[in-house]
Amino acid sequence: MPTVKAWATQSPKSPLAPYQIPRREPGPKDVEIEIAFCGVCHSDVHQARDEWGGALFPMVPGHEIVGRVSRVGADVTRLRAGDVAGVGCMVDSCRTCDPCRHDLEQFCEKGAAFTYNGTEMDRKTPTYGGYSSRIVVDERFTLRIPPGLDLAGAAPLLCAGITTYSPLRHWKTERGDRVGVVGLGGLGHMAVKLAASMGAEVTMLSTSRSKETDARRLGAHGFALTSDPATFKKLAGRFDLIIDTISAPHDYDAYLGMLRVDGAMVVVGVPPAPVPVHAFSLISGRKTLAGSLIGGIAETQEMLDHCGKHGITADVEVIPIQKINEAYDRMVKGDVRYRFSIDLKSL
Amino acid sequence: MPTVKAWATQSPKSPLAPYQIPRREPGPKDVEIEIAFCGVCHSDVHQARDEWGGALFPMVPGHEIVGRVSRVGADVTRLRAGDVAGVGCMVDSCRTCDPCRHDLEQFCEKGAAFTYNGTEMDRKTPTYGGYSSRIVVDERFTLRIPPGLDLAGAAPLLCAGITTYSPLRHWKTERGDRVGVVGLGGLGHMAVKLAASMGAEVTMLSTSRSKETDARRLGAHGFALTSDPATFKKLAGRFDLIIDTISAPHDYDAYLGMLRVDGAMVVVGVPPAPVPVHAFSLISGRKTLAGSLIGGIAETQEMLDHCGKHGITADVEVIPIQKINEAYDRMVKGDVRYRFSIDLKSL
Repeated sequence: MPTVKAWATQSPKSPLAPYQIPRREPGPKDVEIEIAFCGVCHSDVHQARDEWGGALFPMVPGHEIVGRVSRVGADVTRLRAGDVAGVGCMVDSCRTCDPCRHDLEQFCEKGAAFTYNGTEMDRKTPTYGGYSSRIVVDERFTLRIPPGLDLAGAAPLLCAGITTYSPLRHWKTERGDRVGVVGLGGLGHMAVKLAASMGAEVTMLSTSRSKETDARRLGAHGFALTSDPATFKKLAGRFDLIIDTISAPHDYDAYLGMLRVDGAMVVVGVPPAPVPVHAFSLISGRKTLAGSLIGGIAETQEMLDHCGKHGITADVEVIPIQKINEAYDRMVKGDVRYRFSIDLKSL
Repeated sequence: MPTVKAWATQSPKSPLAPYQIPRREPGPKDVEIEIAFCGVCHSDVHQARDEWGGALFPMVPGHEIVGRVSRVGADVTRLRAGDVAGVGCMVDSCRTCDPCRHDLEQFCEKGAAFTYNGTEMDRKTPTYGGYSSRIVVDERFTLRIPPGLDLAGAAPLLCAGITTYSPLRHWKTERGDRVGVVGLGGLGHMAVKLAASMGAEVTMLSTSRSKETDARRLGAHGFALTSDPATFKKLAGRFDLIIDTISAPHDYDAYLGMLRVDGAMVVVGVPPAPVPVHAFSLISGRKTLAGSLIGGIAETQEMLDHCGKHGITADVEVIPIQKINEAYDRMVKGDVRYRFSIDLKSL
């Protein structure tokens, strides 16, 4: 099998470093993509450092991939050489189970083939992510990137974009809805842009007053300081939907109190420990606490088309791959506005 | 104001005992009901003993009221003397706020006038419940009891019935849906009957094998022992909807694991302390944890009509009012199958 350049980590404690990985020759249904940019997701850090357990090494992270199609197999119909294409968190799934048949491949009953730190559906061949020069993926798991989007900023749409778009759509965000976004990071800044593009009245809920200017620039109509207990009183019963992007410990009950009757809070961040929830917080007002995980392939394409139409990309700081270890350290400190995007030319 | 016979408690530590309470003369829109039966709800015990705080004494509990209409005001159109009528948890609300206008009076923004341990909307006149011979209520908060239902068993429909019917309907239970009911008590036994009447495949989830025979008699198609950890593995991903009726501490995460993708667990019981929830339990499978509180007046009427059509009442043990203190002690021990219903003739 041909090999390509990549950066990998060999153990939870090792830094990322240059490495060669195999990439298969494109089969009849495969698309080969020369990777231009790869976004750096928080989950890259968690997995590279094996903070969620079960990590597979060597690991080449990266699941926010955009680039140009270099070759396609004979049966590929949706893309051709020269097209701009993307790959997100998944490269395959069983395609036959109930979730797969309902365009929810992320919940594939056999377990989707995740783009890295996993295996292909043969459950043997390791998958390697986008910190590499090239990737080969079945066309069914590739996405078309609409024309006109900056590619460095488009890359993070493949995870941060769909992770926040999917709950906004599933909980039927409409013009005039009041949406609260908790936390202004990689996910939060996309949630603000996307909710605003749907016509929602968006309020940024943040612990830091320093985020206000940026939040408003990104499209938030309001800003409230969650380090001030008065906020929770002032905004009691206000929101139709809260998208909770933070993975630090926080008090779900307090946020549930800001939902109106029949409102929903959807968590996309994972706090390190279970969060206590009082039944009364849910019963009073028939409220929902739910979770959401990326989105299916069809919905990811819908999100990209929406972003194309509205000119939405992530705010990125472009880095060469040589700065990836430093970028990880900066992300852990929250020192990025709002996503690193690796320029793979540097490889 | 005329007074009527009742049983009241004078403090959190006092037993219930005979007492006289005022009942207003029926106004133009009022319905006067001679109470035949009043169900005994767990919340009667919690409130009489001030376990939720803020209790108002003297207190006449009881919000599962059925009886015969004795008088109606000049403007009353829906009921007339001789009709069988019911009163549930509310006797009034503001009628103008958003929830009230959407038939969700239980979430009235001004706070509904609850049937006892509260006040009328003037926020002065105390309300007294159904452990009494007579009640006077605006017709808008009265319910028609369909013909053919045993009145002692119909009384608990006004709280236990609507509390379990409402989430089954709101989460769109349909023929063939897999519904799990957690806990076989006053609420749980109604959830089983109602879910089965909607065509769902009902599984009783109980800590006690001794409940199996009863659960199946009430309509459950399956039974699983939640004291056996293997149950949670065996039923992983099984249910469309779980109605959780228990107020003892239990592990929400474990139950969420038994939901299918997009499934919902709705809590109607209130454990004494907040329950830790892991974000992964919600994110994996886009699951919902929600709460539900009784139901609006229109939905309560719909539930009663449904029960009339399907011949559904609660399983009750009829007691004279003189046994109410003993009944409270037995309820706390779980020694009732499945609801006490007070025969007010005993008054």
